[in-house]
Amino acid sequence: MNHDRPNEYPIPNTMKAWVLGNPEELTLVDKPVPQPGPAEVLVRVDAIAVCATDVEILKHGLPALIDGELPFNRGFTPGHEYMGTVVRLGPTVDEFEIGDRIAVEVHAGCGRCQRCREGMYTSCLNYGYRDKGHRANGFSTDGGFAEYAVNNVNTMVHVPDDMSDEEATLIVTSGTAMYGLDVMGGIIAGEGVVVTGPGPIGLMGVGVAKALGAEPVILTGTRRRRLETGKRLGADQVVNVNEQDPVEAVRHITSGKGAQYVLECSGAPNALNEAARMVSRGGRICLAAFPADPVPVDLAYLVRNNIYVFGIRGEGKSATHRAAALMAQKRFDAKLIHTHTFPLAEVPTAIKYARERIEDAIKVVVKIREG
Amino acid sequence: MNHDRPNEYPIPNTMKAWVLGNPEELTLVDKPVPQPGPAEVLVRVDAIAVCATDVEILKHGLPALIDGELPFNRGFTPGHEYMGTVVRLGPTVDEFEIGDRIAVEVHAGCGRCQRCREGMYTSCLNYGYRDKGHRANGFSTDGGFAEYAVNNVNTMVHVPDDMSDEEATLIVTSGTAMYGLDVMGGIIAGEGVVVTGPGPIGLMGVGVAKALGAEPVILTGTRRRRLETGKRLGADQVVNVNEQDPVEAVRHITSGKGAQYVLECSGAPNALNEAARMVSRGGRICLAAFPADPVPVDLAYLVRNNIYVFGIRGEGKSATHRAAALMAQKRFDAKLIHTHTFPLAEVPTAIKYARERIEDAIKVVVKIREG
Amino acid sequence: MNHDRPNEYPIPNTMKAWVLGNPEELTLVDKPVPQPGPAEVLVRVDAIAVCATDVEILKHGLPALIDGELPFNRGFTPGHEYMGTVVRLGPTVDEFEIGDRIAVEVHAGCGRCQRCREGMYTSCLNYGYRDKGHRANGFSTDGGFAEYAVNNVNTMVHVPDDMSDEEATLIVTSGTAMYGLDVMGGIIAGEGVVVTGPGPIGLMGVGVAKALGAEPVILTGTRRRRLETGKRLGADQVVNVNEQDPVEAVRHITSGKGAQYVLECSGAPNALNEAARMVSRGGRICLAAFPADPVPVDLAYLVRNNIYVFGIRGEGKSATHRAAALMAQKRFDAKLIHTHTFPLAEVPTAIKYARERIEDAIKVVVKIREG
Amino acid sequence: MNHDRPNEYPIPNTMKAWVLGNPEELTLVDKPVPQPGPAEVLVRVDAIAVCATDVEILKHGLPALIDGELPFNRGFTPGHEYMGTVVRLGPTVDEFEIGDRIAVEVHAGCGRCQRCREGMYTSCLNYGYRDKGHRANGFSTDGGFAEYAVNNVNTMVHVPDDMSDEEATLIVTSGTAMYGLDVMGGIIAGEGVVVTGPGPIGLMGVGVAKALGAEPVILTGTRRRRLETGKRLGADQVVNVNEQDPVEAVRHITSGKGAQYVLECSGAPNALNEAARMVSRGGRICLAAFPADPVPVDLAYLVRNNIYVFGIRGEGKSATHRAAALMAQKRFDAKLIHTHTFPLAEVPTAIKYARERIEDAIKVVVKIREG
Repeated sequence: MNHDRPNEYPIPNTMKAWVLGNPEELTLVDKPVPQPGPAEVLVRVDAIAVCATDVEILKHGLPALIDGELPFNRGFTPGHEYMGTVVRLGPTVDEFEIGDRIAVEVHAGCGRCQRCREGMYTSCLNYGYRDKGHRANGFSTDGGFAEYAVNNVNTMVHVPDDMSDEEATLIVTSGTAMYGLDVMGGIIAGEGVVVTGPGPIGLMGVGVAKALGAEPVILTGTRRRRLETGKRLGADQVVNVNEQDPVEAVRHITSGKGAQYVLECSGAPNALNEAARMVSRGGRICLAAFPADPVPVDLAYLVRNNIYVFGIRGEGKSATHRAAALMAQKRFDAKLIHTHTFPLAEVPTAIKYARERIEDAIKVVVKIREG
Repeated sequence: MNHDRPNEYPIPNTMKAWVLGNPEELTLVDKPVPQPGPAEVLVRVDAIAVCATDVEILKHGLPALIDGELPFNRGFTPGHEYMGTVVRLGPTVDEFEIGDRIAVEVHAGCGRCQRCREGMYTSCLNYGYRDKGHRANGFSTDGGFAEYAVNNVNTMVHVPDDMSDEEATLIVTSGTAMYGLDVMGGIIAGEGVVVTGPGPIGLMGVGVAKALGAEPVILTGTRRRRLETGKRLGADQVVNVNEQDPVEAVRHITSGKGAQYVLECSGAPNALNEAARMVSRGGRICLAAFPADPVPVDLAYLVRNNIYVFGIRGEGKSATHRAAALMAQKRFDAKLIHTHTFPLAEVPTAIKYARERIEDAIKVVVKIREG
Repeated sequence: MNHDRPNEYPIPNTMKAWVLGNPEELTLVDKPVPQPGPAEVLVRVDAIAVCATDVEILKHGLPALIDGELPFNRGFTPGHEYMGTVVRLGPTVDEFEIGDRIAVEVHAGCGRCQRCREGMYTSCLNYGYRDKGHRANGFSTDGGFAEYAVNNVNTMVHVPDDMSDEEATLIVTSGTAMYGLDVMGGIIAGEGVVVTGPGPIGLMGVGVAKALGAEPVILTGTRRRRLETGKRLGADQVVNVNEQDPVEAVRHITSGKGAQYVLECSGAPNALNEAARMVSRGGRICLAAFPADPVPVDLAYLVRNNIYVFGIRGEGKSATHRAAALMAQKRFDAKLIHTHTFPLAEVPTAIKYARERIEDAIKVVVKIREG
Repeated sequence: MNHDRPNEYPIPNTMKAWVLGNPEELTLVDKPVPQPGPAEVLVRVDAIAVCATDVEILKHGLPALIDGELPFNRGFTPGHEYMGTVVRLGPTVDEFEIGDRIAVEVHAGCGRCQRCREGMYTSCLNYGYRDKGHRANGFSTDGGFAEYAVNNVNTMVHVPDDMSDEEATLIVTSGTAMYGLDVMGGIIAGEGVVVTGPGPIGLMGVGVAKALGAEPVILTGTRRRRLETGKRLGADQVVNVNEQDPVEAVRHITSGKGAQYVLECSGAPNALNEAARMVSRGGRICLAAFPADPVPVDLAYLVRNNIYVFGIRGEGKSATHRAAALMAQKRFDAKLIHTHTFPLAEVPTAIKYARERIEDAIKVVVKIREG
């Protein structure tokens, strides 16, 4: 416990929050500060990172549609990669104390459907039904491009004192990468892992895979600077697909055997076919990204080679906790992917930087409060 | 032990065996009877079923190419779905006795590669390297369209006295279906399972799924007679895709929730996309068949809905033993898929019947010896 | 849906319910009918079975103590193996309709602790904290020796029209047996399973194991009549430990190899040591019962033989749903263990019969309402 | 590949080897250098560590008796924790080259029994049957207290150039610790792990657990110096059980919640009961050590708290490869447990040091050849 922090925080009645009008229309408004219910707390949002999915939501609405309802013109506040300070406890909460610094994961499952009951809360069958207990802040419930947000206690993880607000916003991204490795088996020390696509999840995937002892960790991509960042995060080898055939490169690096795992983070049209040829017979592939439209897939190759393909959305199985632990232990330097910072008033600019990769932006963070 | 059986069998020096010349050229020749090595036995083949893969091998060669080597004009004997009688024991064998009736599974892994070491012997990294201990009879080593064959003891399962030779040839097909259910999790009582495609594996999949308590078991296909056979094997519902949209039908049958599992046995171009829409969020799909060429796949749907896809080849994890146990316990009537019988001399006719589905052939059995 | 059932039920303000005073003191009182909260329904209890744990609770209090609080003199109503009719829906409930017949499982986890989050809700770390959402009816919240009870929707399973009230009370017992098989791996077709102890869980374990294709299923015990019941439930072999050494018997039946699994349901002092010698190297044992006091255990044997031991309490991982499916499909005749029936007014007599095994009572059911 | 190494090694016909006569009688003799068979290589033993099990074998014979056969007076050479140089390849071997430095794991399964077929080769049902392919060097086949030994290729792992011979002998010990963590689930980042007993396996368990991100890692023991070594290997907290009650200490360190996992390496009579109270409800315990005689165990506690107990013998599931990878990546300093070194001629002295913990010996290494 940090004895310097206050045990009470003044909480206003209203707050600044960005809300979504028509597609692509974000407006900064005054909204009532929300009230935490049972098992929930009020979080003062201190910083939030922009995710590519935020851009999708602005444009197209939610990735998992709820009875066709779209978020437009409903006063919805997006943003899901945030961290902050616990400032009010809902009824029955003793898992956190006022003043705790926390980072979030996205999904609070309903707790009553078959999937939640089996621990697969990111696949909650009541996705989007707030009344039934489901929350996916920034997706189906209000998110973090605002001064305050409400979180279920099971969507929060403690942030150590020596981790900056900016770095803490990256925990959820690391958690997604970690979940991808977990669903493929999770026991990866000494195994070859290829990460395809050096976006934020891919780069964190490199960091997590190396932290867990994977070897070799191979990163493929097109941008030299990002591949360099991948090296600093722990990649043993990087492959610039503009210069080398990535399948051949992986086969060469692994002495012809192929890797055990591919964490696909590029969403490129041929990524799955290539991934299949990067793994050895019986290998596994996690799809953490995807092309917008259907793409030709060589299913015969998957079947003949006993390959398993795992689609994931989000950061289930409490992977955020494991990722946070590795980051707290300084096993990899997540900060390397944080490239730009803006204040709350400039969320649209922040999103523009992330979207257009201005100045080779990787992770753009909105710092809402001085830490 | 059956006390009526002889404990010694006269074994000739040569045997009748079909061998592959050029593509599609099968010739009945005299070949030396092979000798079992350590951990191997000599099996007198009593009956063998024709598999769709046999047809592929005749036409195109092996599905898992070994350094580009093709089986043509090498004196190779195809056929992998056989049963017979143990007539000679190789050195060190005490797992079986002379006179035992047995059915086979295909893969004897090398026992020394990473995959075999982890129990994934159907993904053996030394596939095709006979010298290293790998055998896949009918694929990379001589198979069962012959009077005798050699088998590793770990590829055999006992056949009870009251099971006919013909039925015993179907154990390996049931084993493949069972393996498909196993890789998706295996604990399926009370869960919805859709089997797409009423070929032999699909129909056995219906039988196994129902035997293990799945509910509802839904079978989709185009041929009325096969769907009827599916019902007799335990399908709670059948869907004729010529008459109904199969995704809508499954959604309707499951009250909108979708099934938990799909065992894809059709190889239809849109089968995976449809399967993805048949399962609920977080559902699982096993691909036991595949289209010959790449097909458009909506990967975004897989990712957004946390769907896992398992390619399988063969009948790993000793699924053959479990399938044999269910058949011995008469949990489903595998014999329903056995439609035609021919003698050894008529293997080409048997294959023709299976290939062209003459008289709606499902499983065509070659009976080599009177049982 | 059963169109004959009413869609509204008259619900009184008070109900008859048994409450616990001092240890062993049960009194029938009038209590207010409870109100279902969010995700909960009001169940009209139609029948309830007596469990050995009920006797323990009467005598000693709860098996998982909550901060030392005992249930005595708090107006607590025990009883957890019940079934009934949904008569009122709490807010947000659409999983069930008024008039649905249901059976229950015990544990509604808190949904917010690490264990619930990973799907291990029977190990909820907030066990007993009603305020945090945990319910274990008949343990930490009011149970079913009463006319009405409140249940979370995730603790209920549908009962088919053709299953009697009495049989439906046995679902939860079957669920516990099924969970025991699940935690050991769950894929048991063709594998040897020994059930030690022919109490209710053991006998249901025989039924479930056989339904899933285990072979051989061996039941050990001392009472001839119960072993006979075991045979009728599917045991391939029974061993009377008064007449045979059970370890030798199992070794003999399995041709010296030992079984794959033991489901220990006797609680006998030497049961674990014997179970270890019944399984083959690498075998697994589930402890579903236990001796009251510490007993000598040969840990060296467990370690040297790579044996895993799984303690279970209750019926986690939705095993109740799977058990209910097998019972609905009439895979085994659970009714064979139902030996006696009493009305609500005679709960103490019912418990006495169960406790003292009067007239060789196995399952004693209290029928609260005519079905 | 190290280009400096020779590609041919002179191999004598005979070698120096220690053999076991009567219990406790070790004699240095001249023996023929063994010949590698298929899938085997000849290893020039360069260094070997003494294990507590070696002492047991000298005294009592093999831990897994083979039909009652004891190793005494059979010319058996013990020793299983060795490393060396590949100097001759058996038929078909291409996994290694002459000149490769390797470390070993113990068990080459038979590859044909049910356990090997499922990847559980340390539980091989043909344990001790050399003819059937099983090898457990230093247990049932000749080990490494000799100049040469034969190893199956699946029992060897590459040693990097910058790892000393002495350190490489510790790989198998780390592998055992890693296997213990693997069988409990293996995904341990951010989870509390208690290691009880600071012997070699326990200390390596600390190193591996910390390398994989466990937190906190707590080590309990009695010897101050060993606990200090544990701290240097990564323990966040150490508990001297002579000074503190270890259960209370663990509960205190974990803020009352308990740890997730206990790796029991002490073999103390009350260790399992204490471990059960160290973990939270639903926690897991691996027994990597054991008391010689049966001890009182509170099974009721295990059952009531859903605790799983995993007995392990050896280093299955290729854990040695994963441990070697972490050591090659210098994730923990295994060398800290290497305390003494002797030449081949002084094996009895080396064993005496290890056995009597002379000068607080932890790992005593016999250096057979100058590296």
